[in-house]
Amino acid sequence: MDKKRVRLTVSYDGTAYHGWQVQNNGITIESELNRCLSELLQEPIQVIGASRTDAGVHALGNVAVFDTTSRMPADKISYALNQRLPEDIRIQRSEEVDLQWHPRHCESRKTYEYRICRNEFPIPVKRLYSLFTYRDLDVDEMREAAAYLVGEHDFKSFCQTGAQVESTVRRIYELTLEEQGQDLVVRVCGNGFLYNMVRIIVGTLLEVGEGRRRPEDMAGVLEQRDRKFAGPTAPAHGLILVKYEWC
Amino acid sequence: MDKKRVRLTVSYDGTAYHGWQVQNNGITIESELNRCLSELLQEPIQVIGASRTDAGVHALGNVAVFDTTSRMPADKISYALNQRLPEDIRIQRSEEVDLQWHPRHCESRKTYEYRICRNEFPIPVKRLYSLFTYRDLDVDEMREAAAYLVGEHDFKSFCQTGAQVESTVRRIYELTLEEQGQDLVVRVCGNGFLYNMVRIIVGTLLEVGEGRRRPEDMAGVLEQRDRKFAGPTAPAHGLILVKYEWC
Repeated sequence: MDKKRVRLTVSYDGTAYHGWQVQNNGITIESELNRCLSELLQEPIQVIGASRTDAGVHALGNVAVFDTTSRMPADKISYALNQRLPEDIRIQRSEEVDLQWHPRHCESRKTYEYRICRNEFPIPVKRLYSLFTYRDLDVDEMREAAAYLVGEHDFKSFCQTGAQVESTVRRIYELTLEEQGQDLVVRVCGNGFLYNMVRIIVGTLLEVGEGRRRPEDMAGVLEQRDRKFAGPTAPAHGLILVKYEWC
Repeated sequence: MDKKRVRLTVSYDGTAYHGWQVQNNGITIESELNRCLSELLQEPIQVIGASRTDAGVHALGNVAVFDTTSRMPADKISYALNQRLPEDIRIQRSEEVDLQWHPRHCESRKTYEYRICRNEFPIPVKRLYSLFTYRDLDVDEMREAAAYLVGEHDFKSFCQTGAQVESTVRRIYELTLEEQGQDLVVRVCGNGFLYNMVRIIVGTLLEVGEGRRRPEDMAGVLEQRDRKFAGPTAPAHGLILVKYEWC
């Protein structure tokens, strides 16, 4: 049989997983996809993911590809695979793509949302998908701070130390804060994100919102190109990869 | 010490519980409250709940009362109790009330929401708090059907058989369907609900939305006063008790 490449749009609840990438010490989204696809297609399958989300991070639309010689039509794989996957992972779409298409070797845009629930006490039904805070947040100041990060910048200060990347320059197309009742949703769209970059941005914006940092400090944080000048890394569970788009 | 009565506003994720009411075969919201309050106040405490929600049903604002001789100020109990409760139960408010006040012996309004997620495949991060359906729903027909139920009616057809109640007459003040993107939220406010009543209403409205029942059938279903004429009981996990109000 000829080989074909299949692209999957994958949604998951990251609560129970050690992140996307295969690890020795725990179950991951990637390892579950490989296991279920290999069983389904009766050949060893290894997926390549667009975004290797951290442990506890969720996704509506992450993307993965794999090659197979199976005769199963690509668009039917979603239905069959969903029968085998655990209920906290669901394929939203499966389709054949060109054999050259690779999710990390193409121009792309990723959109993440980070949800903050503002209340006197935590709301149990929101606890798995938002960061709880009882603090008052000055959203206007947070928006002012966010504006410094839009555009192309060296985001080295917003990258977890130890990450090995060729360049720490990235472009943020959009960084907005939307109030949805008691929730505050930070939405960021960019051409790529460094390790923990969204969570460090949110942790820094929270310091601004709490009055512990001035919005205009953001320019200096960028200039320093040093992780220790940015705020803390916000917890994983408030973050969701909303979509991955390619050109 | 004098006895005082304390009212709690309680929110919970019902996923892990066998409902509100104390049972022999599983942990319930009521049993967790009794256990943690008794430990905290160093005397045996038994709460009385306003709404004995079914297994798997969630709450933003259920209400419970209990009597205590403890000297702890009533409004501080929320903070101390939240330290002891599991993270899927949280007290939103605690306050002293008149010793005569009883949540089931007063005029009250309860508001529930039932969330339906419409998509080709389930969305993992919504799976615990909404009913998934891949079917097209005719929301206008559902609204037309819902209108038959507003007002004071004998809801015997919408009561799980075997329930022992003096009267099956209840008043629905409001029954609305709101589209929130892919979600459809059924919101119902009434002076009381029979056993499984909201879930049977939703199950019947879903049959209307799927075109398997006409909106005008609702008048006949009410008239029959027989459970078997209404639709199926919708699953518990889509339901949340939003608030309980008293006069």
